Amino acid sequence: MKNILLLGAGLSASTLIKYLLDRCEAEDWMLHVVDQNSAQLQQKLNGHPRGIAHLFDALDSQVRRPYIAQAHIVISMLPAIHHVEVAKDCIALQKNLLTPSYISSEMRALHQEALAAGILILNEIGLDPGIDHMSAMRIIDRIKGKGGVLKSFKSFCGGLIAPASDNNPWHYKFTWNPRNVVLAGQGPAACYREMNELKYVTYQRLFQQLDTIEIENYGTFQGYANRDTLSYMSTYGIEDIPTIFRGTLRRPPFCEAWNVFVQLGMTEDHFQIHGSEKLTPRQFLNAFLPFQEGVSVEDKLLLFVAKNQQIFELFEAIGLFEDHAPIGLSNASPAQLLQHILMDKWRLHQGDKDMIVMVHQIQYQQDSKRYQIDSSLVVEGQDERYTAMANTVGLPIAIACKMIMTGQIHEKGVTLPVSAAIYEPILNELEAFGLIFNETKKQI
Amino acid sequence: MKNILLLGAGLSASTLIKYLLDRCEAEDWMLHVVDQNSAQLQQKLNGHPRGIAHLFDALDSQVRRPYIAQAHIVISMLPAIHHVEVAKDCIALQKNLLTPSYISSEMRALHQEALAAGILILNEIGLDPGIDHMSAMRIIDRIKGKGGVLKSFKSFCGGLIAPASDNNPWHYKFTWNPRNVVLAGQGPAACYREMNELKYVTYQRLFQQLDTIEIENYGTFQGYANRDTLSYMSTYGIEDIPTIFRGTLRRPPFCEAWNVFVQLGMTEDHFQIHGSEKLTPRQFLNAFLPFQEGVSVEDKLLLFVAKNQQIFELFEAIGLFEDHAPIGLSNASPAQLLQHILMDKWRLHQGDKDMIVMVHQIQYQQDSKRYQIDSSLVVEGQDERYTAMANTVGLPIAIACKMIMTGQIHEKGVTLPVSAAIYEPILNELEAFGLIFNETKKQI
Repeated sequence: MKNILLLGAGLSASTLIKYLLDRCEAEDWMLHVVDQNSAQLQQKLNGHPRGIAHLFDALDSQVRRPYIAQAHIVISMLPAIHHVEVAKDCIALQKNLLTPSYISSEMRALHQEALAAGILILNEIGLDPGIDHMSAMRIIDRIKGKGGVLKSFKSFCGGLIAPASDNNPWHYKFTWNPRNVVLAGQGPAACYREMNELKYVTYQRLFQQLDTIEIENYGTFQGYANRDTLSYMSTYGIEDIPTIFRGTLRRPPFCEAWNVFVQLGMTEDHFQIHGSEKLTPRQFLNAFLPFQEGVSVEDKLLLFVAKNQQIFELFEAIGLFEDHAPIGLSNASPAQLLQHILMDKWRLHQGDKDMIVMVHQIQYQQDSKRYQIDSSLVVEGQDERYTAMANTVGLPIAIACKMIMTGQIHEKGVTLPVSAAIYEPILNELEAFGLIFNETKKQI
Repeated sequence: MKNILLLGAGLSASTLIKYLLDRCEAEDWMLHVVDQNSAQLQQKLNGHPRGIAHLFDALDSQVRRPYIAQAHIVISMLPAIHHVEVAKDCIALQKNLLTPSYISSEMRALHQEALAAGILILNEIGLDPGIDHMSAMRIIDRIKGKGGVLKSFKSFCGGLIAPASDNNPWHYKFTWNPRNVVLAGQGPAACYREMNELKYVTYQRLFQQLDTIEIENYGTFQGYANRDTLSYMSTYGIEDIPTIFRGTLRRPPFCEAWNVFVQLGMTEDHFQIHGSEKLTPRQFLNAFLPFQEGVSVEDKLLLFVAKNQQIFELFEAIGLFEDHAPIGLSNASPAQLLQHILMDKWRLHQGDKDMIVMVHQIQYQQDSKRYQIDSSLVVEGQDERYTAMANTVGLPIAIACKMIMTGQIHEKGVTLPVSAAIYEPILNELEAFGLIFNETKKQI
């Protein structure tokens, strides 16, 4: 009997746990899940005889280590900054590790040690990063295999709300970590390449510089630049490609309105607002609007948005002009106050379903002709537990876990899923779960 | 014989050292100066029999401590982050300490310990902070003494270039630490109060929201918000004042042009540019301009500045369109690249003189009438050693040092110069050195 150790049983672990439990009997596995939330553990394991709940702090290396020692493989669903510590334990104990997070430079530095330990540390094996790499590499490898030359690679992904549950003018609800949504784009500038020119987009302009994407049956989306794309040129084996861009999708006019928060400074997280516990939403907004004697907060905002009535209404819809009660957070940063306001307005209601949208736009040249491939995936959630996010993040990890347990993956070291030996079987099995890319090709 | 220990003999220490050496014989003092730059030490002490050079790293607490033990007073001209460590030594050894820097929260936390040790740790006793507090408090105390009620306090200061040396269209040269100039305004948002409304200005809008100041014989200046002003309401004893604002002065159109760098992200310091060692100024600029196929860098910038020809020419003047040689910095942040370009263009030349401008605009009500006091100080540098910066930063510290050595200051603990017992004698002696505020009063 082989043990699988899963660290963290949060929102996006539902589908992962179900997939593994469904196969535990046949494959003779035991699934050990560590979390500090007892109710969450019970709910997800649901009394399954092959699922064992462990109620302790998975960040505690001392307590965690004996469980890793007993495992055949470890899956870390902990916050990304903790993966490196888990990886060091896995190297010491010669256990394979899976994470759905971006490879940090500290993680990358463990490659030789992982090779020496004879283990695989497979990262970026969720949705974004994860399915994005695998689906892109399948197209890239196919084009290269036919002798085509890659000219442009653009890829977009967004975690949104399904059309049937889309009933606010932002066309957005929190379907994942609200704090990450509010802070999105802060940190190092996004970086990409366009027609061989190096391009940086810092936070000030991030939500102003948008690509528009149309998807059949789903309408219009807008994408803003996502992180540093340049490293993917070598990861994807497309070092000479003139254009490479990765973006995050929202529904219009989300980005245009969010840019107002950015410009006003209301998403800042590095200082605390004086007397934040007393501020109403109206006072909070007013603290960031330029002073104009005798002018109402509404009129100051209208002026700030160049009298754009549609954008103005988005701010009205989240109650930013309300003055009857304080937001109620002490020693809070602007980002924390804003998140608190939005969590009330962008909350998922009973029956709400989320939606994942992924799009690749790939141009290449072959026999003096230029072609564009558009490939898109739209996934709507099944219910509140098996959300689109839980399915698209959890299934690739779960399938990769199964493949490692059954000896189908031979790669070692610190890596991500860009080789055909990994992505082909995973993408094929994802299709069986209904995660199917819709692809069109045209000459341009 | 009493010892004075000065840590750091950089640019702004020239006047400070001269003032103290001039009085060492009469007062029976010895001045010990610690620096790692031997040439700098020799030049500033100039063989004076009462000046002793110590060539070691003043940040090394082990080496430094015996010298503090021998001193009557310590003056720290080290970078601001090191003052707290020096202060801890001074508390342990019961020695007074002077610094020209803002009181950090760590420094403030040492107040009780300093009181218990029976010492004075006097901070913010340079120019800005320093002369600004003292000259403001003199006016505030005078108004209060006559029964006036403070209604508005606005204060501005700038380190600039003297009119005779002002020969570039930015009307700016580096008269102090260039890195601090490039990073100015980053960090926590500036905060102030206007007609009882709390106001925050984050970096994105800092150089857009400007006050205009006219000074007789010197023309027009523009001020942008400087740090968090609210703490000065209690420091100055004006807790109920409806308007309080502190700003930094530049000549127009400096701020408008600098705002373009801010908006483009070219002052960012938290990430490194890919292949920065190969980038020419033109490529560096182009990396931050939105992509437009077939459009020249000049035309893209012109479009970004809404075809403002004057602003465009400022960028031309610093060679940003040049393409013949790389800037030449490896692993550099945008801020580092920009600083490197500007250090060449904004360098002080032989004979160039700097200039300090300080302005207070104070409104108060008395007998149902409202008055405004405008008080301004303009100081031009004498020569390359005794610059306006060295004089205005060094003299207040030097005078405070003399007053402590001669028993004229009785205050203890961690403080800044806002009591009349400290500011009156210092401001009076500054006037003897020609640092005289020009004050006008009008009914409004």
